[in-house]
Amino acid sequence: MMMSSKRYISKLLLSLILIFLLSIPITAIPSRSPSRFLGNFAKHHKTTDTINKTYRYDIRYFTQTLDHFSFSNLPTFQQRYLISTDHWLSGGGGGLNRFGPIFVYCGNEGDIEWFASNTGFLWEIASTFGALIVFPEHRYYGESMPYGSREKAYKNANSLSYLTAEQALADYAVFITDLKRNLSAEASPVVLFGGSYGGMLAAWMRLKYPHIAIGALASSAPILQFEDIVPTETFYDIVSNDFRRESLSCFDAIKKSWEEIEVEGKKENGLLQLTKKFHLCQSLNSTEDLSDWLDSAYSYLAMVDYPYPSSFLMPLPANPIKEIDSYPEGTSILERVFAGVSIYYNYTGTVDCFDLADDPHGMSGWDWQACTEMVMPMSSSRNNSMFPTYNFNYTSYQEQCVKEFGIKPRPRWITTEFGGHDMRTSLKMFGSNIIFSNGLLDPWSGGGVLQNLSETIVALVSKEGAHHIDLRASTDDDPDWLVEQRKSEIKLIKSWIKNYYQEKIGHFST
Amino acid sequence: MMMSSKRYISKLLLSLILIFLLSIPITAIPSRSPSRFLGNFAKHHKTTDTINKTYRYDIRYFTQTLDHFSFSNLPTFQQRYLISTDHWLSGGGGGLNRFGPIFVYCGNEGDIEWFASNTGFLWEIASTFGALIVFPEHRYYGESMPYGSREKAYKNANSLSYLTAEQALADYAVFITDLKRNLSAEASPVVLFGGSYGGMLAAWMRLKYPHIAIGALASSAPILQFEDIVPTETFYDIVSNDFRRESLSCFDAIKKSWEEIEVEGKKENGLLQLTKKFHLCQSLNSTEDLSDWLDSAYSYLAMVDYPYPSSFLMPLPANPIKEIDSYPEGTSILERVFAGVSIYYNYTGTVDCFDLADDPHGMSGWDWQACTEMVMPMSSSRNNSMFPTYNFNYTSYQEQCVKEFGIKPRPRWITTEFGGHDMRTSLKMFGSNIIFSNGLLDPWSGGGVLQNLSETIVALVSKEGAHHIDLRASTDDDPDWLVEQRKSEIKLIKSWIKNYYQEKIGHFST
Repeated sequence: MMMSSKRYISKLLLSLILIFLLSIPITAIPSRSPSRFLGNFAKHHKTTDTINKTYRYDIRYFTQTLDHFSFSNLPTFQQRYLISTDHWLSGGGGGLNRFGPIFVYCGNEGDIEWFASNTGFLWEIASTFGALIVFPEHRYYGESMPYGSREKAYKNANSLSYLTAEQALADYAVFITDLKRNLSAEASPVVLFGGSYGGMLAAWMRLKYPHIAIGALASSAPILQFEDIVPTETFYDIVSNDFRRESLSCFDAIKKSWEEIEVEGKKENGLLQLTKKFHLCQSLNSTEDLSDWLDSAYSYLAMVDYPYPSSFLMPLPANPIKEIDSYPEGTSILERVFAGVSIYYNYTGTVDCFDLADDPHGMSGWDWQACTEMVMPMSSSRNNSMFPTYNFNYTSYQEQCVKEFGIKPRPRWITTEFGGHDMRTSLKMFGSNIIFSNGLLDPWSGGGVLQNLSETIVALVSKEGAHHIDLRASTDDDPDWLVEQRKSEIKLIKSWIKNYYQEKIGHFST
Repeated sequence: MMMSSKRYISKLLLSLILIFLLSIPITAIPSRSPSRFLGNFAKHHKTTDTINKTYRYDIRYFTQTLDHFSFSNLPTFQQRYLISTDHWLSGGGGGLNRFGPIFVYCGNEGDIEWFASNTGFLWEIASTFGALIVFPEHRYYGESMPYGSREKAYKNANSLSYLTAEQALADYAVFITDLKRNLSAEASPVVLFGGSYGGMLAAWMRLKYPHIAIGALASSAPILQFEDIVPTETFYDIVSNDFRRESLSCFDAIKKSWEEIEVEGKKENGLLQLTKKFHLCQSLNSTEDLSDWLDSAYSYLAMVDYPYPSSFLMPLPANPIKEIDSYPEGTSILERVFAGVSIYYNYTGTVDCFDLADDPHGMSGWDWQACTEMVMPMSSSRNNSMFPTYNFNYTSYQEQCVKEFGIKPRPRWITTEFGGHDMRTSLKMFGSNIIFSNGLLDPWSGGGVLQNLSETIVALVSKEGAHHIDLRASTDDDPDWLVEQRKSEIKLIKSWIKNYYQEKIGHFST
């Protein structure tokens, strides 16, 4: 079956995962909006074609408070959640007095069904734990729209103003508290899970709401990617290293390609030539759009450089970066680059031409979050990076946000609210039961917690792992280290639950 | 000098300290507002006559964000704070690289200068610790008014909507972070202090912002006075016990007085007679106003039943409840009751007549907080209480809030946000470095943490203590247990700081 390029782009858009930011550091020219073509994910309520309905759940809705921290008379909204009680361990009293654990996935910036279908780990371990599974959706994403519709929720800065991580965490806190009460499951321990931004939410929620959740598995959660906590170059350095370790020649070709594109674009009919060379559906207006499109492909590829075929973002072969690097050296740099990104954008070979964006200036949820509190500075270094050199410039970042949303970011707020600097000192004597798992192939690992912060706030680091691979369903091709990592995670979660029951009930019955 | 009764009432109004709620349980008749005459404190920007300027500090202002958790384009406001660097320990680098601790008092529902003048403990220990002292004021109180003035801040539910504990904590977090940066004191440990509602804020802040503060002394903080965590009768039972332990005869007289007032009030000219008997300036409209006035006196007396003369709320003798009980038995019940409350309202003997209220239906800050998130249910039991029997009725409580502010409370929000149920299980493995100090004479101790929650979240309980007596300046009349309690607190705070330095710098130099 031929897939239209429109559908391909819609898949592409689905793959936000914090990545909107990628477009900024390289290309922060004041006249450009910070959204770019990757920031439009949240527009697409549902992309059923990418949701694999392998897992059984009910879809329900919870009436949620729009502003938890102030008391204006705002309308409530319907928060969607997925729930499965198939494996939930019941107590002696039949339906009541359940005591099996409740596994909560902290929904992140997208349709919750998409995350549910890509978080096989939770579904696979539910029966072992006798756990109830619930996936609450993040406000302003998927179907969980304040003001009744996406259009109204995304109308302007006023309607968007409640799209923040703190409000989302409070949603989960209120939702879980209510759910437990309704199920007479007040005594059931809650364990949080999340990947990427969802992992950040899971970790932060365990820190902020220890009375609600006994522990959190935060996979690929770049909670340190703020201010000056980690070097701003880490993200692009890691992407670059992922390519270099497969082939230095490929790394060099990409590194050279940016200038070549610039030169080509400046020629007479150059943009038209580039449009043809890269099989674009619409004529290029600037070389920048093309560069961003390439940049995104490389960064995504680094994130999903899984050791088996996957279709999380796009249908891809196993070890896709290695695949790219297998292209012959003889061809020109731009030909090689096109062949390379085609692995990402057109692995199935069904695309006739590529749409760079359907609406580059449309608002998206993550655009808003990045322009308010999620300011994650990124630069591209001269030496280690294969991307064009770029130094993060907060002033121009802010200018773009003012232009786009009429709002100034609060770049220091996240670390004020959640910490980040010297977490070891503040958390060594405080908090417990968090697993920070990271794979070092994943560019987001640069902003992750890679060392144990205390005896019970631990880091699981895998050299060969990509973006939250541990949360994905197991496959026959899983490498040994992944199998072992999941075992470690299960063991730790079991110990949290056991300790909780011992403290609470005095015995552990499962 | 004769003091006008107006000035006395203004002193009375100054003494809110959570107590507005007292008026509700006894008298929750749907037609009445929940504010009552004690809820008007926040109207009075400054009552300089009650502020003892014993301590030296600068008064400064910080530009504060109005809504930390959403991103509307709201105006900033000026948050007042008091600061003293007199004793701050400087490092080797002169002004820079200070490393002495920073003691922060979490301002509560009133003028911050009043709290500063009544928190002598902090000022007394500053030199021992080489500590900087700072008293940030709570938003919507004192001079820290959003929208530029008290009138505009208190205009309606919309303008008041940002008056919440979470926003106040975020104010402190942002303020402290900025202060440390400006003073190049990022490495200085911050210790929080607070009494009453300020103590609740201190404890919650330690739990929510462990990266900002290394510990908290939460004195007389009724963080469990929510929902069904403690019996709703505790407050009035404790007040009653305070009276009973001094004199059963006095307890009985008060217990009988309520009905006598009712009977008296129903007689022809009864209200006029009561007005005369109680030396009121204005004629009584209902016996309820009188009962509330008496009720408040007893409850305040229980709170400030200090073993030495004090003038925290009113000028009072040592052990004021004992003083009341020394009145002769021969006189009538109402005469005894009047003589009793005169100890509270007129110990200096300078009042000609008593003003019950200047504007019983005016809005006050704590009224708003009690009608939004600070729903602390209180009842008065038939047997143990000397007050009229009353069962807390949430429906009528809510009705009054809707009537007063057009807003429904969220009675479950505080425990969702901060916990409260079974804190021992959730905090045993989580959190550290909090002292909950309570005196059992203090009616708020019923909602306090009276047992250690973990090795480092400890309860210091004194049988003879009243409302946050440990935070007050030392006096020659301090009983031994109080001297010892303060020593314990100093020792614990020293250990927090020492551990922090060991973790952070590897040595402790003070």
